[in-house]
Amino acid sequence: MEQFSFANPAFATYAIAAAIMVLKGVAMSWLTVVRMTTENAGFRNPEDGRKTPLNPKPHDQQLLPNERVERIRRIQMNDLENLPYFLVAGLLYVTTTPPLWLAQVLFYGYVATRLAHFVAYYTAQIHDIRAALWTPGSLIIIFMAGATLVAAF
Amino acid sequence: MEQFSFANPAFATYAIAAAIMVLKGVAMSWLTVVRMTTENAGFRNPEDGRKTPLNPKPHDQQLLPNERVERIRRIQMNDLENLPYFLVAGLLYVTTTPPLWLAQVLFYGYVATRLAHFVAYYTAQIHDIRAALWTPGSLIIIFMAGATLVAAF
Amino acid sequence: MEQFSFANPAFATYAIAAAIMVLKGVAMSWLTVVRMTTENAGFRNPEDGRKTPLNPKPHDQQLLPNERVERIRRIQMNDLENLPYFLVAGLLYVTTTPPLWLAQVLFYGYVATRLAHFVAYYTAQIHDIRAALWTPGSLIIIFMAGATLVAAF
Repeated sequence: MEQFSFANPAFATYAIAAAIMVLKGVAMSWLTVVRMTTENAGFRNPEDGRKTPLNPKPHDQQLLPNERVERIRRIQMNDLENLPYFLVAGLLYVTTTPPLWLAQVLFYGYVATRLAHFVAYYTAQIHDIRAALWTPGSLIIIFMAGATLVAAF
Repeated sequence: MEQFSFANPAFATYAIAAAIMVLKGVAMSWLTVVRMTTENAGFRNPEDGRKTPLNPKPHDQQLLPNERVERIRRIQMNDLENLPYFLVAGLLYVTTTPPLWLAQVLFYGYVATRLAHFVAYYTAQIHDIRAALWTPGSLIIIFMAGATLVAAF
Repeated sequence: MEQFSFANPAFATYAIAAAIMVLKGVAMSWLTVVRMTTENAGFRNPEDGRKTPLNPKPHDQQLLPNERVERIRRIQMNDLENLPYFLVAGLLYVTTTPPLWLAQVLFYGYVATRLAHFVAYYTAQIHDIRAALWTPGSLIIIFMAGATLVAAF
């Protein structure tokens, strides 16, 4: 059986978790677009203040930071600081042939806490709640990278 | 045949597209260096304002944002928001054993539109053109992640 | 022998280097948390200024940029601009079945120079030293992506 095939249930679990996380990450770009459009502000490039079909009502505040847009950008940045490491550590972890139940706990646990972290961030919950929802995912990445090191040596 | 070998034409296509995108992404770091050098400005660290062999003519504006440098940083940031997701979604997509022609359309279509997006961003085209060149790539990532989910379940 | 198994010494080398780099990248998030806590400043979200169990002593400067926190964020950003490309280029490079000694030089050379780059950045060495420690890693990524292109065509 090939390791990186859907016949390997640990890989299939990884693939599902990874695909969901990729979709989540890409969704932040679209959410930024939606926010910039509804706010008609928060643009970043000098040329974005020009009147165009997609910017029919330019005004001179459009290029200033807009908190509702910046929140989405911070969420996206948080994804960039976490998801690529998860995506690689998870793939490596599959090659350690972990028990399926553990792979499922780690992969789906990561997805669940990251989605909950998004909801908490999006709705501006206090930092303590965000921290509680960010920490498990970070520990999962550390555990998987550590398990890879142990298996590779 | 191993899935992730060049004997698998879908993987070979992915490998070519991924390698080009990695080179493109890394090139942004070098372009930032070139811009900071030619502008002699746009540095970010307090210690970067010191006189050194690489900074023979320090001046007190060097640490302020420089629009010509910031543009490259925004292009690089746009890569970071997109390329890692493409690189992972593409590898997962190969494991779904897609028809070769479709893999080629998606992988090379991604590369072509991202390179065109770079040209548009670099030359400060209006947002509408950038948006038109960014959107296909984002949809390609979403399609590949979705196809992975369908195949994995 | 499966290519992406620890029985393949080039893959095992990659897995060790990749796991160390993932741990290094994730450590920057934790270091940011430590710095924000010890500085009691450098927070980014409006809601982070509220009094909570994790923020017992709020003050009205907490949301302003703090240079000691910002330094860690710049180091983390530098990782995001480099590590994902290394992680993908390295995995692709393994599929080119490189000589083991060369794979070891490239993978461990990358790890060594990136860790040295971190020490230089963290201790605020002049830009020239940072540049000298950043350049080998970037050239290693370019070499591995180039070798992948050559092998895939």
